[in-house]
Amino acid sequence: MSSLPHPEPISGANYSAAELTLANDAVILLDQRLLPSREEYVLFRDVPALIEAIRSMVVRGAPAIGIAAAYGLVVGARTVSSEAEFQRVAEAIASARPTAVNLRWAIERCIRAVKAAKVTDYAEIIAQEARAIHREDVAACREMGRLGAAYIPDGGTVLTHCNAGALATGGYGTALGVIRGAVEAGKKVRVLADETRPLQQGGRLTAWELAKDGIAVEVIADSSAGWFMARGEIQAAVVGSDRIAANGDVANKIGTYQVAVNARAHNIPFYVAAPWSTVDLSCPSGADIPIEERAASELTQRGDVRVVPTDVGVRNPAFDVTPARLVTAIFCERGVIREVSATGLSQLT
Amino acid sequence: MSSLPHPEPISGANYSAAELTLANDAVILLDQRLLPSREEYVLFRDVPALIEAIRSMVVRGAPAIGIAAAYGLVVGARTVSSEAEFQRVAEAIASARPTAVNLRWAIERCIRAVKAAKVTDYAEIIAQEARAIHREDVAACREMGRLGAAYIPDGGTVLTHCNAGALATGGYGTALGVIRGAVEAGKKVRVLADETRPLQQGGRLTAWELAKDGIAVEVIADSSAGWFMARGEIQAAVVGSDRIAANGDVANKIGTYQVAVNARAHNIPFYVAAPWSTVDLSCPSGADIPIEERAASELTQRGDVRVVPTDVGVRNPAFDVTPARLVTAIFCERGVIREVSATGLSQLT
Repeated sequence: MSSLPHPEPISGANYSAAELTLANDAVILLDQRLLPSREEYVLFRDVPALIEAIRSMVVRGAPAIGIAAAYGLVVGARTVSSEAEFQRVAEAIASARPTAVNLRWAIERCIRAVKAAKVTDYAEIIAQEARAIHREDVAACREMGRLGAAYIPDGGTVLTHCNAGALATGGYGTALGVIRGAVEAGKKVRVLADETRPLQQGGRLTAWELAKDGIAVEVIADSSAGWFMARGEIQAAVVGSDRIAANGDVANKIGTYQVAVNARAHNIPFYVAAPWSTVDLSCPSGADIPIEERAASELTQRGDVRVVPTDVGVRNPAFDVTPARLVTAIFCERGVIREVSATGLSQLT
Repeated sequence: MSSLPHPEPISGANYSAAELTLANDAVILLDQRLLPSREEYVLFRDVPALIEAIRSMVVRGAPAIGIAAAYGLVVGARTVSSEAEFQRVAEAIASARPTAVNLRWAIERCIRAVKAAKVTDYAEIIAQEARAIHREDVAACREMGRLGAAYIPDGGTVLTHCNAGALATGGYGTALGVIRGAVEAGKKVRVLADETRPLQQGGRLTAWELAKDGIAVEVIADSSAGWFMARGEIQAAVVGSDRIAANGDVANKIGTYQVAVNARAHNIPFYVAAPWSTVDLSCPSGADIPIEERAASELTQRGDVRVVPTDVGVRNPAFDVTPARLVTAIFCERGVIREVSATGLSQLT
C-alpha cells in the first residue's frame, strides 16, 4: 500500500514507521528501504517475517523497532499455544538485533503487563501495552524536542547523522524532534544531514521527512562534516541513540563518534536526544554495549555493481560508542542531562 | 581494450592510469570509473574528449592528471595551426579541474620545454617532456615510498583515504607508494581503506591495486575510521595530496581533514605523501586553494536509484584542506618534511 492503511495512526503524522491494525491482527510497517523513491506499507501477520523485517531494516531506529517488536508480540501471542512457546517468540523478537536496548525493553514491558493482568487473552493485554509504549514514545519525543529546542541557536545550522526522526521512533523524532521543536518555537533552523553510509538513512530518510515538513535540509557526504565545521557552517550537532550506558556513553549509528570528535575539535556542542527507554542502567559503560556487525554486501554493492573487488574484505560495524566526555548534553523526556555521567543520569532515575 | 595497449608502459606495472602511444598520436587512459568490475583502456586522439575524460574522472589523482594533461598537449600540438590556438588548447587542458596544481604545473613545464627548444615540431618536444614528467613521477613515488617506509610501524595497520596509488600517479603511488615501500623493506603492513564517498576511490581503486600486489587490505565506511582508531586498530594514517600550499596546508580528497582531526584526537601520526610537483609555493595558504564543487548527482544517485529526495539539495565539495599543524610529516622525493610549515617546506626549495 502506498499510503498508511490505518485510520488513526499513533505517530501523529500521515506516515508512520510502525502501527498495529485496529483488529490487532497485523503490524503495519513502512518499508524504509524503499524511501525516498516509494512510500510503501507492508502488513506482517506472523513473527518470523516481522523479525526478518527488523533485521533487514524495513523498520529501524531504536524506539521504532521497540514499538514494532511490541506490536509483533501481539501478533505472536495470537498464534502461540503454550506459555513456553510464547516465551520463545518473545525471546526471538527481543534478539532480532543486538545494539538498541529499546527492543528488549519493549518486549519485557509487555511481558510484565501480561503477568500483572493475570488473564489468558495475552494479545489484548499486549496490544494495550504496546499502544501505550507507542503513545508514550511520541509524547517523550515531543517533550525532549521542547526541552532541546532551547539549545538550538536561532538562525543556526544543525548537523545530524543517520535518521533520528519520526521514522526512527513512534513519531516526531528524537534528534529531529529537537529540530522540529526549535522550528515550532519560532526559530529559523537549517539542517545538514550526513548521508550516513552504508544504508543512507540521512540522505534517504532524514531528508525525506524534513522536506515533508518544509524544514531546510541539505545532504552531505559523511566525510565532509568536519570540513563544514571548520568553515564555520555548523553551530550544533544533534543525534539520536540506540543505547545509553549508565556512565553516559552513547551508542549510535556508525559515524556518530567521528561527528562528536570533530564537534569537540571545533568547539561545537554535541547533543544526544533519546527517550529514557534508551538508557540501559544495567550496562555500566559503552564497552559493554554489543556492536552489531552487518553484512559486507552493504559496503561492497551499489545496486548490481560491485564497488569493492571480489577478493577484498570489509569491516562493517553498524554502530559506535561516543564516550560521555564528548557529549555536551542529553535531551530526554525526563529532563536535560547537562552533566553527562553516572551522576548526571542518576538524577533522572 | 581490456589490457594495457602499450608495450613499454612507463608506469612500471602491467596497468597504468595514463600512457602515450609510441607513435605520439593518442593518450591511453584506464577508465577508472569502471574499476574494479572492468579494466578497460580508452584511446584519446583529440583534446576536447581528453578534457571531458579528466572532468568525468576517467583519470583522476593529481599526479596522474598532470601526466594525462601533458600527454594531451602532445595530441593537441599535432592538430593546432597557430601559436594562439596552441595557447588556447594548453589553457583549456590546464583548467579542466581546479584543485590539483599538477595539472597546470605539467602544462606549463611542457610549454617551457617548447620555448627552450625553439623548434616547430611542438608535438615531439612535448612528448619528450611529458614522458620525462611521467618517468620522474614514478621515480619520485619510489623515492618518497622508500623514505616514508621508515615511518610505517612493522606489524601495524595503516589507514588511507581515497586512492593515492599507482592509479593516481605515473605509477607506484604516493601514499600507497609508502605502503609498498614498507612492504618492500620487509615490513608486515595491513591497510584499512576508507571507501571514500561519493566516488568510492578507496573501495574501488585502492582495494583493487593493493589486492593485485597481495597487500592485506580491508574496506571501511569513511565514518568508521575514528571508531577503529578509538579501538586501537590503526597505527598511522597516510594520504596523498592535490596541492600543498607554501605554509604546509594540504588539499586532498574531501574527508581527509576529518581523518587528520581524528588522528590528532587519538595521537596517531598523520602523514602526507606527495611529489614536489604538488607543492604550490605561489599559494600562501590553504585558504587560497580553489575547492572544486562537483555535481549533486554524485550524492543523489545510486545507479538508477535516487538516494536523496528530488526536492532536497546537496553540498558536494570534492576536496578539503588539512592545516599544516595536523600533518605529522610530508614525504617527498626531495626528503621528509618533519616540520610542516613555510620554514620546513623552504628547506627543500
